[in-house]
Amino acid sequence: MLQSKLFTKTKREAPKDEMSKNAELLTRGGFVYKEMAGVYSYLPLGYRVLTKINNIIREGMDAIGGQELFLSALQDKNLWEQTNRWSDDIVDIWFKTKLKNNSEAGLGFTHEEPLTRIMKDHISSYKDLPIFVYQIQTKFRNEIRARSGLIRGREFLMKDLYSFCKDKKEQEKFYEKAKNAYTKIFERLGLGDKTYITFASGGSFSKYSHEFQTEMPDGEDEIYLCSGCKKVAVNKDIWEGQKKCPECGNSSYTEKKSVEVGNIFNLGTKFSESIGLFYKDKNGEQRPVVMGSYGIGPGRVMGTIVETFCDEKGIIWPESVAPFSVHLLIIGDDKKTKENANNLYKELEKKGIEVLYDERDVSAGQKFADSDLIGIPNRVVVSEKTVKENKFEFKKRNEDKSVLLDRDELFKKLR
Amino acid sequence: MLQSKLFTKTKREAPKDEMSKNAELLTRGGFVYKEMAGVYSYLPLGYRVLTKINNIIREGMDAIGGQELFLSALQDKNLWEQTNRWSDDIVDIWFKTKLKNNSEAGLGFTHEEPLTRIMKDHISSYKDLPIFVYQIQTKFRNEIRARSGLIRGREFLMKDLYSFCKDKKEQEKFYEKAKNAYTKIFERLGLGDKTYITFASGGSFSKYSHEFQTEMPDGEDEIYLCSGCKKVAVNKDIWEGQKKCPECGNSSYTEKKSVEVGNIFNLGTKFSESIGLFYKDKNGEQRPVVMGSYGIGPGRVMGTIVETFCDEKGIIWPESVAPFSVHLLIIGDDKKTKENANNLYKELEKKGIEVLYDERDVSAGQKFADSDLIGIPNRVVVSEKTVKENKFEFKKRNEDKSVLLDRDELFKKLR
Repeated sequence: MLQSKLFTKTKREAPKDEMSKNAELLTRGGFVYKEMAGVYSYLPLGYRVLTKINNIIREGMDAIGGQELFLSALQDKNLWEQTNRWSDDIVDIWFKTKLKNNSEAGLGFTHEEPLTRIMKDHISSYKDLPIFVYQIQTKFRNEIRARSGLIRGREFLMKDLYSFCKDKKEQEKFYEKAKNAYTKIFERLGLGDKTYITFASGGSFSKYSHEFQTEMPDGEDEIYLCSGCKKVAVNKDIWEGQKKCPECGNSSYTEKKSVEVGNIFNLGTKFSESIGLFYKDKNGEQRPVVMGSYGIGPGRVMGTIVETFCDEKGIIWPESVAPFSVHLLIIGDDKKTKENANNLYKELEKKGIEVLYDERDVSAGQKFADSDLIGIPNRVVVSEKTVKENKFEFKKRNEDKSVLLDRDELFKKLR
Repeated sequence: MLQSKLFTKTKREAPKDEMSKNAELLTRGGFVYKEMAGVYSYLPLGYRVLTKINNIIREGMDAIGGQELFLSALQDKNLWEQTNRWSDDIVDIWFKTKLKNNSEAGLGFTHEEPLTRIMKDHISSYKDLPIFVYQIQTKFRNEIRARSGLIRGREFLMKDLYSFCKDKKEQEKFYEKAKNAYTKIFERLGLGDKTYITFASGGSFSKYSHEFQTEMPDGEDEIYLCSGCKKVAVNKDIWEGQKKCPECGNSSYTEKKSVEVGNIFNLGTKFSESIGLFYKDKNGEQRPVVMGSYGIGPGRVMGTIVETFCDEKGIIWPESVAPFSVHLLIIGDDKKTKENANNLYKELEKKGIEVLYDERDVSAGQKFADSDLIGIPNRVVVSEKTVKENKFEFKKRNEDKSVLLDRDELFKKLR
């Protein structure tokens, strides 16, 4: 894409009303726009990143048999009363609204209830189970405070998968599958090294749930990370002292600040029993369906990636979620330089390499500063000097030094 | 996909609370679930169709230079007060809600206001214009009645594009481009033959706007269609008698019931002046940006397609938006038949042809009935009989007779 056509402009100064680094950098880079506290719109660069994150998550869910659907945001009061989750005294983050006939509706903060009701049409026998469904859909949570940019939103995208199984055994088998799928997803998103499977409270349904916590100095959570394997952690909420790590047997832990980027949860039969989702087993006996839920917030992931990969100059996107793979900068405007840069742009596009081509009529200094701020992983500069030497100046955003490469070497770097 | 894995089941009987044919068939086929009047969730088959419709629209918008973004649903009261569209006396379809601090927020029914405000950060000079942006995003409209299934929703997806231009001339040029893009989109969606460019009220901004109206017996709108070219129509709201058709000069018209599947609208400077979106022209003079808006509702399109293409047995999807291209049915369960059907399934998948394979343990009658209801355009039957003859039974959903084809002939039909 030609950068002159991209309508967003970068900002030099941090917005005054943002306290989080992710919102600061994403706003300055033109990725998002803050509509109100905790409510962000995604501008083209941000939407490109979000789409890539969504697709990585989607592929992970499809791979374990997830069927994608898309539920409504508006929620039926009567349904939520059946599980005792309508009252504001019990769930204190509802946004509620009124239909014209004065009846109340809610804006979904999660979707166990409507999905359990839908499944009543489709599950009647053990032969119908198991079923795994997911969506990537907007959730609304009326948070009192929302100061963490994309990390805690009042409106945000969520991937939520729900499992419907015959019994605990089948549910546990899928739970392990989902855990492994999550590990792979966070690896692909670039967060693998800093994301730990974390024991957390299981609520009333089972002893533990599992969170995926990413180490982050400004995170809202606190975990104890096993100093041995550095893979498993325990959420501070359920910390009971230094027990043996189930992964490596070690029993020394380090306290870390972190952010919860995903969670997986056994729900038992709470929702199926309240809403009446039963099936007939092999012996013709009526049994409640055993459920689980599995969440990842793509916007929160985006904020976490930004806080994890940035420096004083801007964002450093991992290749897998970068808005473009290559940032091509032309410095100078003589005919030969232009020809050379234009040709490279065309060749990159032709090869299907996503490239943002900064051919704007602005200073070299601004181009370099914008490139560092926007954080595309591979930067290629074409200038009078590089043309003379029949080379291209190549630099990775996460490396300090640039190198001069000829065409073949360059394309080898860009694969 | 194996149909035994698809969790949705069809229903023989029409739901009692649906008055529209689209909702009836889509519910019976397991495409959608009604959460409340005017609020539908999309189940896997429905979500597949919706995604295809979205992608056809998306390609059309990208082709005319649209940049995709994704705005929030929650809306800032202060902003909408600037254009005098906050009051329920003026806009009577708002859903409103409250933040924890008791301040009000709305749920967006359209997005001129927030987008105009965003553009203030990015437009300052004539060099920044024109800009075209769009999104495919959920809208909320608090309709008094919502009895038309997917055609009039309280919550629904909308593709809304907005243009920002220097002056009327630039705006009109894009307006024509958008009109042509819309024509192509409705052709690709299968609705081309029955969709007419319709003169409608321009509101306070310009004499006319243009609607894309699809002929439909149960439609809520009425249009006068030119009997000459059968391309241009006039909305009954602005009908002033039989003037000459601008396309063919004819002046006889036929009254038709129809549904508005798209509209394009000159907005003039109403929003830019109210919200303060100005730019400096070549002479350094401050001018308001000239805007336009361009909508298509993907869910409404889906409902319209269903009502347009169906018979007493079910839906007849156009190839371009069908949930799958091929419905493969196995009738019988002897080893050879199974082998033959499984091999065909594998070969279709390998060739990237989207296939739903009905290998369920249900009667032949149910398989045929479900296939007609779900409406996949190409049906292939493998049975003991076809295997004996070394053929496949092929039938298009919109044709009456099936034919026996050998493998090569079959793949020619399926391209």
